[in-house]
Amino acid sequence: MDPILLLDYAGVAVFAATGALAASRKELDFIGFLFLAGVTGIGGGTLRDVVLGDLPVFWAENPDYLLVCATVAVVIFFSAHLVESRYKLLLWLDALGLSAYSVMGAAMGLAATGSPAVALVTGVMTATFGGILRDLLAGEPSVLLRPEIYVTAALAGAASFIALFSAGVELTLAAIAAFAIAFLVRGGALRFGWTFPRYKSRPGRRPEDIP
Amino acid sequence: MDPILLLDYAGVAVFAATGALAASRKELDFIGFLFLAGVTGIGGGTLRDVVLGDLPVFWAENPDYLLVCATVAVVIFFSAHLVESRYKLLLWLDALGLSAYSVMGAAMGLAATGSPAVALVTGVMTATFGGILRDLLAGEPSVLLRPEIYVTAALAGAASFIALFSAGVELTLAAIAAFAIAFLVRGGALRFGWTFPRYKSRPGRRPEDIP
Amino acid sequence: MDPILLLDYAGVAVFAATGALAASRKELDFIGFLFLAGVTGIGGGTLRDVVLGDLPVFWAENPDYLLVCATVAVVIFFSAHLVESRYKLLLWLDALGLSAYSVMGAAMGLAATGSPAVALVTGVMTATFGGILRDLLAGEPSVLLRPEIYVTAALAGAASFIALFSAGVELTLAAIAAFAIAFLVRGGALRFGWTFPRYKSRPGRRPEDIP
Repeated sequence: MDPILLLDYAGVAVFAATGALAASRKELDFIGFLFLAGVTGIGGGTLRDVVLGDLPVFWAENPDYLLVCATVAVVIFFSAHLVESRYKLLLWLDALGLSAYSVMGAAMGLAATGSPAVALVTGVMTATFGGILRDLLAGEPSVLLRPEIYVTAALAGAASFIALFSAGVELTLAAIAAFAIAFLVRGGALRFGWTFPRYKSRPGRRPEDIP
Repeated sequence: MDPILLLDYAGVAVFAATGALAASRKELDFIGFLFLAGVTGIGGGTLRDVVLGDLPVFWAENPDYLLVCATVAVVIFFSAHLVESRYKLLLWLDALGLSAYSVMGAAMGLAATGSPAVALVTGVMTATFGGILRDLLAGEPSVLLRPEIYVTAALAGAASFIALFSAGVELTLAAIAAFAIAFLVRGGALRFGWTFPRYKSRPGRRPEDIP
Repeated sequence: MDPILLLDYAGVAVFAATGALAASRKELDFIGFLFLAGVTGIGGGTLRDVVLGDLPVFWAENPDYLLVCATVAVVIFFSAHLVESRYKLLLWLDALGLSAYSVMGAAMGLAATGSPAVALVTGVMTATFGGILRDLLAGEPSVLLRPEIYVTAALAGAASFIALFSAGVELTLAAIAAFAIAFLVRGGALRFGWTFPRYKSRPGRRPEDIP
């Protein structure tokens, strides 16, 4: 199977699982599980296809992706209670999805435009947009504003893929290596709390305190 | 008049009205009424056109839709004070728009791709996206997270239309019947508080309480 | 240089700066600066290109725009501490970006569709969407819900450009005049607290207080 296509299905499935886990944390009904699994699973790839002009979007051309989301929602609906910490599982699955999608988004951006800068952006965009939608719609605090490294992992995955592939490394190998790099960065951040120095000259005042 | 086109104008008008009612609840100025009426009225259809690749989007090809939104904003600006409970009216108009758009989105998805699964998703997406935008921008609690049945009504409308039309029922009849089904589901949920059993093994802990 | 293109680069740069300032107020790391600068800088133009069907979007065809965002993020990262009130600077730069983008969005909408109504909407949409995304993602209170005139300034810029250009005024002159009008309206609102009468028959009750 095409490794990029495999990353695509895997990304959809694990992001859908994070959406369903968010639904379980909010105690939604089964339709809520389906909805959040769908939005999170296909959100990033939808935005990628739209900005690259690759329309209709991927799931409108191949509805199998929708079946993947629905299946994952059913599985999580019946098994979420077995998990000790659903939010931790959500974060780790999100890390897997982030890694898969950063590579896949970069590969598609590179194929469509030939520009490494554009590929970096489509990689990061594809990797982060589903999670942003999930957190907005479920009212979870945004993963983006969490202290540990997040966007950086997507950037690392996209940049590694672009560098390796441009250097002549074979597609499958470049994709696997870049996936591993992104996952190591995000996994290390989750496990060991890796952070970058944050900007800290002064925090911003609240807008209403500004004369 | 084409029944699908009629549902389209009706959907734009009632969603625009819910946006203007949200503006009145937030005490915005007249431009705020226009803005929220516009975003809510055309939001769902815009997303539908984008994912199906039917660009430019509908209101860029036929600006009459913009006129509908502006007219509705004016009417609500001058009449909202007459309404006893603006939030209740908002919810009922949202129910009408949800029903109209679930059918219309499904019809367009089916026409564009021939896939029932894709048509289900474009139906639900068209029906819910305007309301999601309205609640996000106006800072109202999301209709999605309300306890009673919401997305299910959109799903029921889209599924009924797809089933009836695929079974050979004439377009107008299938559209009217599916609209009625969606509205009965959502209206019943609003009137009688219908809910599905919610997932409730344990509520999620707050992220900051997780070690 | 084409005046419309100049407004485009200027709009990207100042919106990117507001995104980076929001990142500094939230004490994000450097990647957070890049991310918010990028989203805010290219958000409005991306939406404009999508609804007009002008795909791939502008920055996927010309990655220089991404370089502009990255450069601005670096500059703000190293200089934000020099600024006395970052939120005030953010609001003033946002006013510049709003003015540039309202004209540019209107010019592109007019060129693509010939409809003044559509051009008004693409003008306002381009001018406001980047700021909406910035505030949503950074958790800042939305500029849209601030009391002083905001969307109106975008509307004024777009309407002036459409009126002047349709009346036969030369493109560069019409663009400069409309930019100045938008900036005077928004700048006056910021400096003197200009507001429109707000809708105030009764504020909305909180949804949970409604029987």
